[in-house]
Amino acid sequence: MSKQIIRNKGLLNRPIGVFDSGLGGLTVVRELIKRLPNEDILYFGDLARLPYGIKSKEQIVQFSCANTDFLYDKGIKGLVVACNSSASASMRILRKRHAINLVDVIMPAACEAVSQTRRGRIGVIGTQATMLSKAYDKAIMKIAPKMKVFSQACPLFVPLVEEGWLKGEITRKIVKTYLTPLMRHRIDTLILGCTHYPLLKKLIQQTVGSQVRLIDSAGPTVKHLKNILGQARLLTERVRRGRLSVYVTDRPGNFVKVGERFLGRHFSEIRLLRAKAIPNLN
Amino acid sequence: MSKQIIRNKGLLNRPIGVFDSGLGGLTVVRELIKRLPNEDILYFGDLARLPYGIKSKEQIVQFSCANTDFLYDKGIKGLVVACNSSASASMRILRKRHAINLVDVIMPAACEAVSQTRRGRIGVIGTQATMLSKAYDKAIMKIAPKMKVFSQACPLFVPLVEEGWLKGEITRKIVKTYLTPLMRHRIDTLILGCTHYPLLKKLIQQTVGSQVRLIDSAGPTVKHLKNILGQARLLTERVRRGRLSVYVTDRPGNFVKVGERFLGRHFSEIRLLRAKAIPNLN
Repeated sequence: MSKQIIRNKGLLNRPIGVFDSGLGGLTVVRELIKRLPNEDILYFGDLARLPYGIKSKEQIVQFSCANTDFLYDKGIKGLVVACNSSASASMRILRKRHAINLVDVIMPAACEAVSQTRRGRIGVIGTQATMLSKAYDKAIMKIAPKMKVFSQACPLFVPLVEEGWLKGEITRKIVKTYLTPLMRHRIDTLILGCTHYPLLKKLIQQTVGSQVRLIDSAGPTVKHLKNILGQARLLTERVRRGRLSVYVTDRPGNFVKVGERFLGRHFSEIRLLRAKAIPNLN
Repeated sequence: MSKQIIRNKGLLNRPIGVFDSGLGGLTVVRELIKRLPNEDILYFGDLARLPYGIKSKEQIVQFSCANTDFLYDKGIKGLVVACNSSASASMRILRKRHAINLVDVIMPAACEAVSQTRRGRIGVIGTQATMLSKAYDKAIMKIAPKMKVFSQACPLFVPLVEEGWLKGEITRKIVKTYLTPLMRHRIDTLILGCTHYPLLKKLIQQTVGSQVRLIDSAGPTVKHLKNILGQARLLTERVRRGRLSVYVTDRPGNFVKVGERFLGRHFSEIRLLRAKAIPNLN
């Protein structure tokens, strides 16, 4: 399919889609609201099937295609794949699937890391699936082949954040256990390659020391999306504040509490819907 | 639907079905192989959608029905719902759905706890979903209404086991954090209400002290199933060793390692299949 983007006045006011396996992608939404306050946003969280980061590449691709199809059918003008595990497994396939302005969290974070590093020694942390894919290594190599990249999967970070244990001795020790091998490689920049990790930022910074720069993908990703939509003349010209609609495939008990933790505001302003039938998913 | 069980010679040699959200139910299979070595077993692990314990009751019911239908269609003579979260949410619905010998892990463990307790103070630990359902409290109240039941969700235990952190200082501290409130209630018996938890048994026992009896549901569950199948004259009369077939909805990288940890033997003896299309699941 050609990548031709149909431009017309009607497209301007279409919403921007964001999907994630869970609620972590709301950190990207928070940044979107800050930088593009007049845009409508459709957020999709696959809470019934999360987490993705412990599953096979094949499975993650299947889920990611279904989520993209769902948002595409709602008539979005651009899509942010906020889930690192999804992005690392399926960007090439998603680009072929729909002629849409598509942004992931990996390339923008990789660019940011390359521009921030002083000695060219970049660390990356993320889920098992993201680390196995070597998506960050490949992205950095494309931009700056001489960089040294060191990666570490941190499988307990997501459950820790979900449990709300963002500080304290236990979390500090777990952070130290995962990050000590990276520090031995004398990294000077560290990419937080999972939307859950920014909630552990303070503890991670204390552990790696103030000389290591932490890269959170939300800011660079939204900046990149803004550029792309701007070039395509697809930024809304409306002046009213944009609306956020949240679609979830499940609504467990702690949904609101965890969601508000990521979004940084109350959920009361949000239209909450339930995605009943997602095509293409067995 | 009536609960009439059709008895005939052909039924005897049908396999026993076991399902779990993941691989934890293999602890029940391990016990099945020990006590009913000549029975064929069909194991179903919903690795694509796990974990269940953090999801809504409605969602868990939907998954559990789909898993049961899948195994039922394979022609099983009995079914063990090895997943505590599934059992706590959906046993009533599953019983209505199929006229089949159906056993869960909750009632057998509750019976065992009631028979073992000395002072009638029983603790239960499990996932968020299992604890919210109060399934153990209700089961114990049915058997012995005067018992005192104290429960505690331990959301980090499953990820810890999956990560293979079965000992060490961090895991010890997490175990202590969750169990200290229960110890304050002076429990004398503790039900491990999740198939993952027996792998932390040693550490849990050290934390609660040797005077507290730990109840692992695998043994009582298989004993109960054996009774039921025996009464229905459905135990096989074959003398050859039974076969174990494992069906999974996903096959992530650490599948074999984690599976062998639960099963307590190598996976090489197992016919590994992939459940391609599970009906009734969006």
